[in-house]
Amino acid sequence: MTLLKSWVASANSATTDFPLNNLPYGVFSTDGGAARCGVAIGDQILDLTALEAAGKLPLDGGPLLQNGAWNDVMAAGPAVWAALRSELQAALAEGAAGQADLATHLVAQEDATMHMPFVVAEYTDFYAGKNHAFNVGTMFRGPENALPPNWLSIPIGYNGRASSVVVSGTDVVRPNGQLKGPNDELPRFGPCARFDIELEMGAIVGQPSDGMISVQQADDNIFGYVLLNDWSARDIQAWEYQPLGPFQAKATATSISPWIVTRAALEPFRTSTPERERPLLPYLKEPGPMLYDIDLEVGLTPEGGSESIIARTNYNEMYYSAAQQLCHHTTSGCSMRVGDLLGSGTISGPEKENRGSLLELSWGGKEPLTLDTGESRSFIEDGDTLTLRGAASGDGFKVGFGEVTGKILPAPAIPDFAK
Amino acid sequence: MTLLKSWVASANSATTDFPLNNLPYGVFSTDGGAARCGVAIGDQILDLTALEAAGKLPLDGGPLLQNGAWNDVMAAGPAVWAALRSELQAALAEGAAGQADLATHLVAQEDATMHMPFVVAEYTDFYAGKNHAFNVGTMFRGPENALPPNWLSIPIGYNGRASSVVVSGTDVVRPNGQLKGPNDELPRFGPCARFDIELEMGAIVGQPSDGMISVQQADDNIFGYVLLNDWSARDIQAWEYQPLGPFQAKATATSISPWIVTRAALEPFRTSTPERERPLLPYLKEPGPMLYDIDLEVGLTPEGGSESIIARTNYNEMYYSAAQQLCHHTTSGCSMRVGDLLGSGTISGPEKENRGSLLELSWGGKEPLTLDTGESRSFIEDGDTLTLRGAASGDGFKVGFGEVTGKILPAPAIPDFAK
Repeated sequence: MTLLKSWVASANSATTDFPLNNLPYGVFSTDGGAARCGVAIGDQILDLTALEAAGKLPLDGGPLLQNGAWNDVMAAGPAVWAALRSELQAALAEGAAGQADLATHLVAQEDATMHMPFVVAEYTDFYAGKNHAFNVGTMFRGPENALPPNWLSIPIGYNGRASSVVVSGTDVVRPNGQLKGPNDELPRFGPCARFDIELEMGAIVGQPSDGMISVQQADDNIFGYVLLNDWSARDIQAWEYQPLGPFQAKATATSISPWIVTRAALEPFRTSTPERERPLLPYLKEPGPMLYDIDLEVGLTPEGGSESIIARTNYNEMYYSAAQQLCHHTTSGCSMRVGDLLGSGTISGPEKENRGSLLELSWGGKEPLTLDTGESRSFIEDGDTLTLRGAASGDGFKVGFGEVTGKILPAPAIPDFAK
Repeated sequence: MTLLKSWVASANSATTDFPLNNLPYGVFSTDGGAARCGVAIGDQILDLTALEAAGKLPLDGGPLLQNGAWNDVMAAGPAVWAALRSELQAALAEGAAGQADLATHLVAQEDATMHMPFVVAEYTDFYAGKNHAFNVGTMFRGPENALPPNWLSIPIGYNGRASSVVVSGTDVVRPNGQLKGPNDELPRFGPCARFDIELEMGAIVGQPSDGMISVQQADDNIFGYVLLNDWSARDIQAWEYQPLGPFQAKATATSISPWIVTRAALEPFRTSTPERERPLLPYLKEPGPMLYDIDLEVGLTPEGGSESIIARTNYNEMYYSAAQQLCHHTTSGCSMRVGDLLGSGTISGPEKENRGSLLELSWGGKEPLTLDTGESRSFIEDGDTLTLRGAASGDGFKVGFGEVTGKILPAPAIPDFAK
């Protein structure tokens, strides 16, 4: 597939994340005004809320774009998703009629503030990257017992906290929590000393379901994907997680990209999950390629310093696709709702430089990273800004997600009642 | 405290759950009409949605009762909670003016269909009953290692699935899931064979918070309590829960009572959590009694048979109060929202007959229960109806929750794509 040309000149570059092939959806505002739905094209945003309000974007079941979130469009279903994308690709294509009028609804991205693109119904996080699971398991249990016995049969997931999800650019305050080192007799309350990222993709459920659905239906129900950083407090997690899983260690923040890249835009980049090391149960077998070839990277910028790229990997490293995860999520009869967000689990590749968390990159703090500036890092320090980027690459064009960025602020002072 | 008398005669009995002292809030409909907010009084419901619509119940910031859920009242804050309760206690008291008019807004409970009383924002389940944790731990790890090392320091919790929460009376379909017995080489997909209840109380967060709050603030933010049955698929859980906790085992259904008993109604029944076996960190210390003396029981009724009471216990068996749980929930900076629901964890007393789950009552299936009908049970069978009841007892009156009931229907047929 090649670049589709647009009359918006900046969309025709080989380096933009947002050519006409992409058309990701977000929510933005300008000058402190109301939040509006928009689509990114090159370095611009087309204001779809304004277009719909002016009667220039009639959608079945509309209005669907007047609530400052994409949930109404998702709920309207796949026929509306296809119609909207088709309408936008035609209207923004090179040579399209009505350019002058549409151009009055373009807003420069540099003038816009981005908001959460959708209301998160519930958030589930998975543990479905094999290199990550193997690395973490090796650190805690040794290489022979690295993978839990169920890992090759179940896309392991746990419920996360929807209220933790924030949009890229939101500062992240280092958490306090209960901590107990291996040699401490009793726990204490204080700031997390092993604060970390997890490089993930997030899949957004666009259609509700009751009862169990197939992998194919699950894929059909996914509206699109975001980049996701599952901020993790490793020391809080180590003390709290037995026997019922992570809780406060994952509740501080979960940052996502402001742009939802639709499943339709990712179609050309489908790829298969890797060969199975143990046969899957029939319900988890994929009828076709349901993973995507998306290059990913993580940058770390110390306060006042320059960025070092600390990891490069690809979404195709996952052992389970989002469709498999969503299918498994419904096995018990669990109802899924529009706006449910599924984190992929940390995406690490096979080599050291492909690891999607500092826990793995610094091997539990034992092998600190050296940044390009010469500073070293085992975990995140106050003032650091972490940035995830991701894009699929076509022939002379990219389909990108923009960035997920967050700066770490110092932990809150311990309140008197906790002293 | 003694019975407060009402002009609604049925509210003056020593056996009703709903005297004037209680005034629990629910959502109901009649004859397939719209869902309305109401308060239970004796065997009647006062239709508050109708009263407010008629201008007879002006509330600060109102209207607050027109959405078929109690979230708007919760969001309005403690001053409105107090004003509403005070207004209702005066209007329904023996000798109150305006009885004839109010009586036209009474609906017999037997003519009403009950609905979810509030929109659940997020659902968190805890593991904070010591007898339960000890029993379960003993079965899996022996009595020496029964309690996890963190148990006496942390109210252990995990995020549950808000979409699983249903109102009493909703049928519960036995789940399918991945199962692997200890002697099976590979897992298989099929119906849960160890389906169970967990007898719990649920605390409802009525005020939002950002950042860490104290135990006292947490208590102040709790709007009220419901009875809660955390249906659990023990065999699914056994295979899936390592290392990140229960997932599909708890996602089938979580049943709650249709009536929210307010914190105000429970004030006379406050009691302290038990003595600590290990000192708590300062932030978890309670400034006063924050548990409640509420008698609880579980009934099991086989299809077409009569009910056996299989367990009796009391909410005062908890090691951690809901206020402690909510405080701990905020330590990492986790935002809490109006309508968040916190399950207490299974409430088991010290004796065999006090155990709040079949897992404990039948000791993992090794000691089946004998019902009054002579039938035996290790876990729930299709057609069984499970009913939880709870009430605090005053001097000649009760403050009760009504019932949480659910009938188990057979598991769905395995779909073709899962064969």
